[in-house]
Amino acid sequence: MQRQPACVGDRAEAIETPALVVDLGALEANLDRMAAAVSARGMRLRPHAKSHKCPPVAALQMARGAVGICCQKTDEAAAFVDAGIDDVLVTNEVIAPAKLARLAALARHARIGVLCDDARAVTRISDAAVACNVCIDVYVEVDVGAHRCGVAPGAPVAELASAIARAANLRFAGLQCYQGAAQHLRAPQAREAAIASATVAAIASRDACVARGLAVAAITGAGTGTFEHEMASGVFSELQPGSYPFMDADYARNEAAPGAQPFAQSLHVLTTVMSTPVRERAICDAGLKSMSFDSGLPLVAARAGLSYVKASDEHGVLQCDPAQAPAQWGERLRLVPGHCDPTVNLYDWLVGLRGDRVECVWPVARGTLG
Amino acid sequence: MQRQPACVGDRAEAIETPALVVDLGALEANLDRMAAAVSARGMRLRPHAKSHKCPPVAALQMARGAVGICCQKTDEAAAFVDAGIDDVLVTNEVIAPAKLARLAALARHARIGVLCDDARAVTRISDAAVACNVCIDVYVEVDVGAHRCGVAPGAPVAELASAIARAANLRFAGLQCYQGAAQHLRAPQAREAAIASATVAAIASRDACVARGLAVAAITGAGTGTFEHEMASGVFSELQPGSYPFMDADYARNEAAPGAQPFAQSLHVLTTVMSTPVRERAICDAGLKSMSFDSGLPLVAARAGLSYVKASDEHGVLQCDPAQAPAQWGERLRLVPGHCDPTVNLYDWLVGLRGDRVECVWPVARGTLG
Repeated sequence: MQRQPACVGDRAEAIETPALVVDLGALEANLDRMAAAVSARGMRLRPHAKSHKCPPVAALQMARGAVGICCQKTDEAAAFVDAGIDDVLVTNEVIAPAKLARLAALARHARIGVLCDDARAVTRISDAAVACNVCIDVYVEVDVGAHRCGVAPGAPVAELASAIARAANLRFAGLQCYQGAAQHLRAPQAREAAIASATVAAIASRDACVARGLAVAAITGAGTGTFEHEMASGVFSELQPGSYPFMDADYARNEAAPGAQPFAQSLHVLTTVMSTPVRERAICDAGLKSMSFDSGLPLVAARAGLSYVKASDEHGVLQCDPAQAPAQWGERLRLVPGHCDPTVNLYDWLVGLRGDRVECVWPVARGTLG
Repeated sequence: MQRQPACVGDRAEAIETPALVVDLGALEANLDRMAAAVSARGMRLRPHAKSHKCPPVAALQMARGAVGICCQKTDEAAAFVDAGIDDVLVTNEVIAPAKLARLAALARHARIGVLCDDARAVTRISDAAVACNVCIDVYVEVDVGAHRCGVAPGAPVAELASAIARAANLRFAGLQCYQGAAQHLRAPQAREAAIASATVAAIASRDACVARGLAVAAITGAGTGTFEHEMASGVFSELQPGSYPFMDADYARNEAAPGAQPFAQSLHVLTTVMSTPVRERAICDAGLKSMSFDSGLPLVAARAGLSYVKASDEHGVLQCDPAQAPAQWGERLRLVPGHCDPTVNLYDWLVGLRGDRVECVWPVARGTLG
């Protein structure tokens, strides 16, 4: 367990670095905006909690009308059910019997859903549900264009759905139609086109199910980069955006659709300049173990003249613009991580700031690989 | 805390995935080889523990003659001192008074060293040592070519060393001359040239100290990629390699020097194929949250025909060669991570395998950011 980097009531300057900090005002505005947008359309919001892994953030989402949450791992599901979330969808294939047994046990305390893209998994999920005497919601994952998991749209979906509907203690709950590859397409037209194509795949899959007499209770999917398009599709019934509470540098590189109101960057990695060997270079204490670099380098927030140009395990190299104020030894900086989800995954604690004051120190269910 | 992925005595097939596993035979051979090489030269080995963060691995290193260990963070130092390691050098600048206070407290139980590259830090380290009534070893970090932290070689080193030597409760312990940027230069000649240049800087710094009447008790540095060159330099007295117990895909890309015997890959991320949607593609359960991708994609070990080609948070996409056996649903694979240190940092447990049997499940002091 990591050291708690601050205590409630501390001033921001007392937070030990590196630390993951969230501006609570910006977070709440993001949560409000998404909740309002989705409810205005009469749709269901099931935010993805893989981004925050943080039960208190899930509670804020539920308080704003979310119908439940998504997560990716069975141990994440356990953390949220333990915290009182009563409707959790694991938007992933789970095939290990030991994991399915634990997932089924959770269904004694909450509504539990899981994805499936293979008939062999139907038997395993059913066996686990029967052994626990519970019912599990199973969604067919459709490959709507991301080419990751998922069965091909149309007849193959209906065939798998039929197997689920026939299996003991399973409920065919609907279709998972998440187009993950569309979230970071830079041009809004490209994102719109990808979701239009995903919608065609969703319709074909739904219609194939209906033709076999299977009701499709939910078509669920969408992410922070595309949710407006799934919302406008007339086909999706539920949305799963995950990054909008926090945002990151990679989402900021998406070109916004005309008229769209961007979500604010609420999440930062707080770091300290620990070495200023020369005028043009400074070294901070946040490197590869403090942020994920899969989506590029972090940005320095609210401080002109400094660029984060290189990372090693425990160091970040800052380049100092000669025309601006140099980095100060001991100066504290806020970094915008390239990718929020795997960055949050590095921390046990999320420090909530209201202005300059630590209002909360939330646990992150980071220990959730499996 | 993550779920322990296996129990001692389990067969390998029972390990829950994703999991970090180490082949104990290969690990021990790596440890033996480094210990023998360094002792044959009559040099001191102080392995870097930032790579493993694992007290039982440190104990194996100490049992093979290591004089102590290095680490990068004060909370790492605490984890190793708590586990009984009695000589710990934090090879990093520590400037926060709260961290220095904790570091000084450790010096009641172990010999503690820390780096310095700024006269303002001397006062802070001294204050912390005085407050705890302990003595702390302080090394001047010299910029020997990596251009990260560190003072310029020669006179500036001697000036800072002199300030350390004058400060209350500090001992000027020597020079940190680590050339991190040289470790992954691909050509052996390039690594040799970089360390030749670092050696010149070390000599200039040592001589400047001696000219001021300051004894330089140790010149320490080196990594797994270059230690043979520091060992042959005649100037370095102590070596700090970190990755050699485990190795990784990026080190494997280094071209070996003629006659050099490579270290074996002992560390893998164990993963399960959880989806085989089409013949040419399979999806495994290890993605961005299970490995670090700063040094590229992982390699699939000991399984022809599968390549790890893309990662998302909890998924890895495998490309299946049409001329080889396709990935099997439920098949288990070993992945060689691109970069071992930040990959280990994602896990709470390291599963030690002897053949097909779990011999140990070691804790990783992963909660050590600060």
